[in-house]
Amino acid sequence: MSEIFDQINPPPRLLMGPGPINVDPRVLRAMSSQLVGQYDPSMTAYMNEVMALYRQVFKTENRWTMLVDGTSRAGIEAVLVSVIEPGDKVLVPVFGRFGHLLCEIAHRCGAQVHKIEAEWGNVFNPEQIEAAIHLVKPKMLAITQGDTATTMLQPLKEIGEICRRNGVLFYCDATASIGGNELLSDEWQLDAVSVGLQKCLGGPSGSAPLTLSDHIVEQIDRRRHIEAGIRDAHHHDSKGEVIRSNYFDLAMIMDYWGEERLNHHTEAATMLFGARECARILLQEGVDEAVQRHKLHGDALREGAQGLNLRLFGDQMHKMNNVLGVYIPEGVPGEAVRTAMLEDFGIEIGTSFGPLKGKIWRIGTMGYNARKDAVLVTLTALENVLRRLGHKLPLGEAVDRAMAVYEAAAQ
Amino acid sequence: MSEIFDQINPPPRLLMGPGPINVDPRVLRAMSSQLVGQYDPSMTAYMNEVMALYRQVFKTENRWTMLVDGTSRAGIEAVLVSVIEPGDKVLVPVFGRFGHLLCEIAHRCGAQVHKIEAEWGNVFNPEQIEAAIHLVKPKMLAITQGDTATTMLQPLKEIGEICRRNGVLFYCDATASIGGNELLSDEWQLDAVSVGLQKCLGGPSGSAPLTLSDHIVEQIDRRRHIEAGIRDAHHHDSKGEVIRSNYFDLAMIMDYWGEERLNHHTEAATMLFGARECARILLQEGVDEAVQRHKLHGDALREGAQGLNLRLFGDQMHKMNNVLGVYIPEGVPGEAVRTAMLEDFGIEIGTSFGPLKGKIWRIGTMGYNARKDAVLVTLTALENVLRRLGHKLPLGEAVDRAMAVYEAAAQ
Repeated sequence: MSEIFDQINPPPRLLMGPGPINVDPRVLRAMSSQLVGQYDPSMTAYMNEVMALYRQVFKTENRWTMLVDGTSRAGIEAVLVSVIEPGDKVLVPVFGRFGHLLCEIAHRCGAQVHKIEAEWGNVFNPEQIEAAIHLVKPKMLAITQGDTATTMLQPLKEIGEICRRNGVLFYCDATASIGGNELLSDEWQLDAVSVGLQKCLGGPSGSAPLTLSDHIVEQIDRRRHIEAGIRDAHHHDSKGEVIRSNYFDLAMIMDYWGEERLNHHTEAATMLFGARECARILLQEGVDEAVQRHKLHGDALREGAQGLNLRLFGDQMHKMNNVLGVYIPEGVPGEAVRTAMLEDFGIEIGTSFGPLKGKIWRIGTMGYNARKDAVLVTLTALENVLRRLGHKLPLGEAVDRAMAVYEAAAQ
Repeated sequence: MSEIFDQINPPPRLLMGPGPINVDPRVLRAMSSQLVGQYDPSMTAYMNEVMALYRQVFKTENRWTMLVDGTSRAGIEAVLVSVIEPGDKVLVPVFGRFGHLLCEIAHRCGAQVHKIEAEWGNVFNPEQIEAAIHLVKPKMLAITQGDTATTMLQPLKEIGEICRRNGVLFYCDATASIGGNELLSDEWQLDAVSVGLQKCLGGPSGSAPLTLSDHIVEQIDRRRHIEAGIRDAHHHDSKGEVIRSNYFDLAMIMDYWGEERLNHHTEAATMLFGARECARILLQEGVDEAVQRHKLHGDALREGAQGLNLRLFGDQMHKMNNVLGVYIPEGVPGEAVRTAMLEDFGIEIGTSFGPLKGKIWRIGTMGYNARKDAVLVTLTALENVLRRLGHKLPLGEAVDRAMAVYEAAAQ
């Protein structure tokens, strides 16, 4: 029997979890644009503009700054599979779920993966990382900047210098942090950074911007093999080992984004239009101003949560601006609270993974939703739901404390 | 210097090349919907609906019918890397560019690739394929149904039975053909089919629907390894070799689309909304009716092209309905014609690859653009441009011949 269903009509939701969050309406409008051909001069011009825009987002001069067509983990895999040759040593400092993901992907690329672990809710100091580098002597250090599973933000500033001094490639997955927390790709000597749109950039999942230093590009170039069917007589393969993936082969993706425009995939134009608008929105506000905005609303949410008599999770010195972890109070049914928030108020807050499953909630203030009204509406709804589900709290204090943060900032 | 560029505003184009083509406005409207959370009941319901819709598109009862988040070659790589273990033999009959792509991807998955080749413009008969299977004894046969590079459509009907009889897995990339040419996944005993949205389905590139038979799912299941960080005590790994990709691991993608909803990537919701609407549009028309529509407009275009005094490329018995190859006439500057079509008339037609580069043009009539007005506008513009650039042709005959096709069909 043929079943065709109704036209799409999602319920209205205020997405205050760890992401994805509501897409900025400007991004949706950009994505509703009609297509042009893959090699239309206007399309290739848009591709070049995307490169220029994301250089500013990443704070880099790197020529090779572009999109991988897939979700944020597609960007991670593209970097790792294009660099790692089977047997290469990769060091991964793990302080949450996404460190495990980096290990997993590196392992599948054939790496000898060495991990060091910090307890969830903490980050690493540079000495721990340097000691591990001395011990392991890896080809690459792969690390997450912000892990939404734990809400922690790993400081990166000193790690680049350590990597450079020890001849180690330095890769960072900044999906959860970009746009809401400081990231200085060049100043911090990052060799590769990949991200997604669905956190502080205010876009939908499905496009993975990344940037590559000249140094890492040299290594990838040594593995350039152009696929049969589009290879011309003037193309010469490099001597390095063939990259184990076609789709994620950054050498070929560079050829597609570069002057030769060698066909690889068919660019996901609608996602590119969205990624372009995400960057324009961020840059019109200013990257530093956007980080400050995330800090302001993150601080207000944190104060408000304490006004709800909720205990904070994790090392508050190293918390991301855009997501807050709070312990589910003893005796309060965590999932019933989330369900009431969603069904009665249309507001989504997050649960967690692994060792924190059922122990904390995660509340985000990011991208388009790093706004005063979104914070206050969430706090009042949560106050109501918590009170009805048996949690003791001082009425009205959540908003009072959040408001105090806003008032102090306005002075 | 900060450079933010203008808001997106692509020039109006009628895309009559080999794809991507203009997106159906209904799809753009669906994609402008606001997001809901990744595990929102409405989102998981949409995912289930997408599975049900694409079963009808693929004409299959396969439970595992879902999306891979990436362009059509992401779907190809997901199937191949999830099935192929290093050393496995894969047979690829190559009759155009995309057969080479299948070889390339299979090779990078570690396969021993055996190819047989047909001259561009032709297809294989079942005897040639069975003979190669007997010789090679592959684990899998991987083949393209329609190759836009040559405009050819490979008949598949008898190959499934041959594969089944010889214990060979049967995979087909039907990106260019689906929706415009008959495809009966179950009746033809296909084990896996993957496609994209950007041809006859009238969507943008960036989502890869695929379907997997129970038989191939069994093989993939033997390689299921759940990633650290989301693994629970009740999860057990299978004994088979770990799949070489995390992003394309179909065992994990099934776990994400299945009842357990184990986190893998964050679904590219906007692309999913688009993929859902593409399927709804096709099914509201009827798959068979859509194939007939592509045949009608393809026939009209072919007659019209002959009225332009253009010679047809390739075996016309095995041409796809949705794309036509015509030789660039002697003495006519091929690229100047394409440029005039684009710049003066806003119409894109295609060039070709490899051995056909500079020799043929490719003109598509697919998806939203498989329409009478699109065909007639293209023919009149092409008549004008060809005449101005020195090609001799009988004025008015192109539209007369196309019209005759429409009139015959209306009777």
